[in-house]
Amino acid sequence: MNAVEIIQKKRDRQALTDDEIAWLIRSYTTGAVPDYQMAALAMAVFLNGLDTTELAAWTGAMLNSGEVLDFSGIGASKVDKHSTGGVGDKVSIPLAPMVAALGIAIPMMSGRGLGHTGGTLDKLESIPGFTTALEAARFKSVLEQTGLVLAGQSETLVPADRKLYALRDATATVESIPLISSSIMSKKLAEDLDGLVLDVKVGRGAFMREVDQARQLARTMVGIGRAYGVETVALLTAMDTPLGNEVGNANEMAESIEVLRGGGPADLVEVTMSLGVEMLAVAGMESNPIAARSLLEQTRREGSALEVFARVVQAQGGDPTVVEIPEKILPSAPHADIVKAPRAGYITVMDAYKVGVAAMRLGAGRERKEDTIDPGVGITLLAKPGDEVESQQPVLRLGYRHPARLEEALRVLEGAIVIDDEPPIAQPLIIDRIE
Amino acid sequence: MNAVEIIQKKRDRQALTDDEIAWLIRSYTTGAVPDYQMAALAMAVFLNGLDTTELAAWTGAMLNSGEVLDFSGIGASKVDKHSTGGVGDKVSIPLAPMVAALGIAIPMMSGRGLGHTGGTLDKLESIPGFTTALEAARFKSVLEQTGLVLAGQSETLVPADRKLYALRDATATVESIPLISSSIMSKKLAEDLDGLVLDVKVGRGAFMREVDQARQLARTMVGIGRAYGVETVALLTAMDTPLGNEVGNANEMAESIEVLRGGGPADLVEVTMSLGVEMLAVAGMESNPIAARSLLEQTRREGSALEVFARVVQAQGGDPTVVEIPEKILPSAPHADIVKAPRAGYITVMDAYKVGVAAMRLGAGRERKEDTIDPGVGITLLAKPGDEVESQQPVLRLGYRHPARLEEALRVLEGAIVIDDEPPIAQPLIIDRIE
Repeated sequence: MNAVEIIQKKRDRQALTDDEIAWLIRSYTTGAVPDYQMAALAMAVFLNGLDTTELAAWTGAMLNSGEVLDFSGIGASKVDKHSTGGVGDKVSIPLAPMVAALGIAIPMMSGRGLGHTGGTLDKLESIPGFTTALEAARFKSVLEQTGLVLAGQSETLVPADRKLYALRDATATVESIPLISSSIMSKKLAEDLDGLVLDVKVGRGAFMREVDQARQLARTMVGIGRAYGVETVALLTAMDTPLGNEVGNANEMAESIEVLRGGGPADLVEVTMSLGVEMLAVAGMESNPIAARSLLEQTRREGSALEVFARVVQAQGGDPTVVEIPEKILPSAPHADIVKAPRAGYITVMDAYKVGVAAMRLGAGRERKEDTIDPGVGITLLAKPGDEVESQQPVLRLGYRHPARLEEALRVLEGAIVIDDEPPIAQPLIIDRIE
Repeated sequence: MNAVEIIQKKRDRQALTDDEIAWLIRSYTTGAVPDYQMAALAMAVFLNGLDTTELAAWTGAMLNSGEVLDFSGIGASKVDKHSTGGVGDKVSIPLAPMVAALGIAIPMMSGRGLGHTGGTLDKLESIPGFTTALEAARFKSVLEQTGLVLAGQSETLVPADRKLYALRDATATVESIPLISSSIMSKKLAEDLDGLVLDVKVGRGAFMREVDQARQLARTMVGIGRAYGVETVALLTAMDTPLGNEVGNANEMAESIEVLRGGGPADLVEVTMSLGVEMLAVAGMESNPIAARSLLEQTRREGSALEVFARVVQAQGGDPTVVEIPEKILPSAPHADIVKAPRAGYITVMDAYKVGVAAMRLGAGRERKEDTIDPGVGITLLAKPGDEVESQQPVLRLGYRHPARLEEALRVLEGAIVIDDEPPIAQPLIIDRIE
């Protein structure tokens, strides 16, 4: 095997063999193939693509670059949900306990926020003491005890992805459907799942701004999941507007608890329920969507979901009373500022991207991987698209710590909210379903 | 400036600005932009190209990465010739002294052989004592003394190219017309020339196998030359068959001396004269091709070209009697083997690529940059395409040192010679002229 010949083949739009891909990913992981050769190949893949066979081999090679979990001792169906990332997307936090409360095992590995998107791990860590860094044995024992574990990616899983992702980030080869798909799917396949539900976000605040692109990404990932025998379904969901009313960490955690208690904003509940219905289906528990939704609602009504969440918080070092008195346990911002409607009319746009960047500037997110998060700060939406507002009516509340950061956030928010005389045409939250 | 954004632009087929290109090449040369970012960009350039404006900026940035020669003290026109490389292509050695004998200054910087192609430096160094590694002051003084200098690329000229070429070699991004053109032209522009003649080889033994590709490369390089105010002309010349009858180093040197003495094989003389005519034209000395050819012939007839060459050999440390008794001065192979015609008929193919690889296996060339050359070994063509041969008539003589290498060479030569009942249709040696 020769890296130059492999790069040349892909450059010339020829398909790579399974052996070539396996050798390449293995050699890159060990360092035998240097970054510059992988960078050239990544660009060739970005521009010339990978076919279905190559993609399955690529994902498999990534998966096999490290440890693969084994939960064969767990009798229950093992299901996970993965979102491609959005603004205000805290769905995993209320969803996972609801599904786990129904007896499905959820070995959930999440990511951190980067740029304008938030990350589940950061939101979870807004609970004082809560740890998401679990070594393998503890990960498994929390899963066995509570039916749910909410952790970060283990260092031993898919090391090729960690290395390749950093390289892609530095070489403008991130936004490639085969590279995104294999990155996401190799990590999910390493979780030893029976079923997987993908939430592919589309719109201003998402990675994929166009429905066609998002659909292609969804189809590609579903194809990989099926090729590896994991029951996989994807929903395309709207991400033009932040999901729910809270963007930040502690405030998103509080909103998640509200959902678990049976409340929460309609859009957040709707996306949570829609994804939950799919999780019950891929787990082989309930294929009728109406029956599945009713089972999920029951976990909120009867408190079983909240109870699972409290047990997980405790098992992972957090204070479980957060589910009863979140306002006392969770940190908050010392100061607040209000953004008012500049005119009367209907809100037609509340730009998720700009709100996400503004929250990051306040300290809720990371510009660079090494930045630290301020869990208390964030943005609350006091009105949403479709709402009629009066001139000077408060539409956003910014919880902040440093005035300089507030100013930066306010600058980013310029033009984020559009008010019109006519109400906007309502757009569906669930855009498509790919199986 | 940000390398990722520059890579992204090229990836998305947007044109880079002059400033972006200048910053990038400068930063790559200093090491501020790492190899892996340049590798991703090189692949994006390979696949998406550079437009004329970008290419001029790219070449200029390469040129300005190091020292640029200044021969303003030299009154004569300064002209060089560059070949894209072939098998048996020793043209520079007889050509440069002929043109210099007419009063044109030739600050020639040549390269070494790699793979199946030979290199002028290796051929020159077959003269015992001849050195091609001249520091700047000596380079200039040899040029001033003799009107000609035959040296290797100075370390201080175009350092970006040395670095980028090594990277391209390791990342399958060599065969890119903009990258080849800017690499060649930046080095030639650093020689402070008034005129430049390019010999773009086409065919089996050339880098460019198709006329269309070669024409595109020629047009691109001529365009760059003109953009920098250097009178530039390119000839497309045939490289299906080795040029002349000798392939190797000492034997090619001997054949070159034969040309300088007024002899030499017809194809070699024809290509040498055609390029010489163009050199006289770009130097502003003689634009009438018939008159120019007659001037060049005169330098052979009267011995002035041979005299210039002898002076250069002496000035660069070699024994000038090589021009009188080459067979006594030049090394030779201790053993010889003969390849015979397997049948009677007309030779239709004598594959330059295979002959070039066979010569390399004998030790005349380098498989890897670090390989050493055996100057005495090589291949002599005893017949050429168009010649009628009898069965078992000798067609190649292989001068060798090690029997194992002879065997390797003979294996490579299988199928290199094709004999047919009908003579081949004669192909032109000079295929096109681009100005």
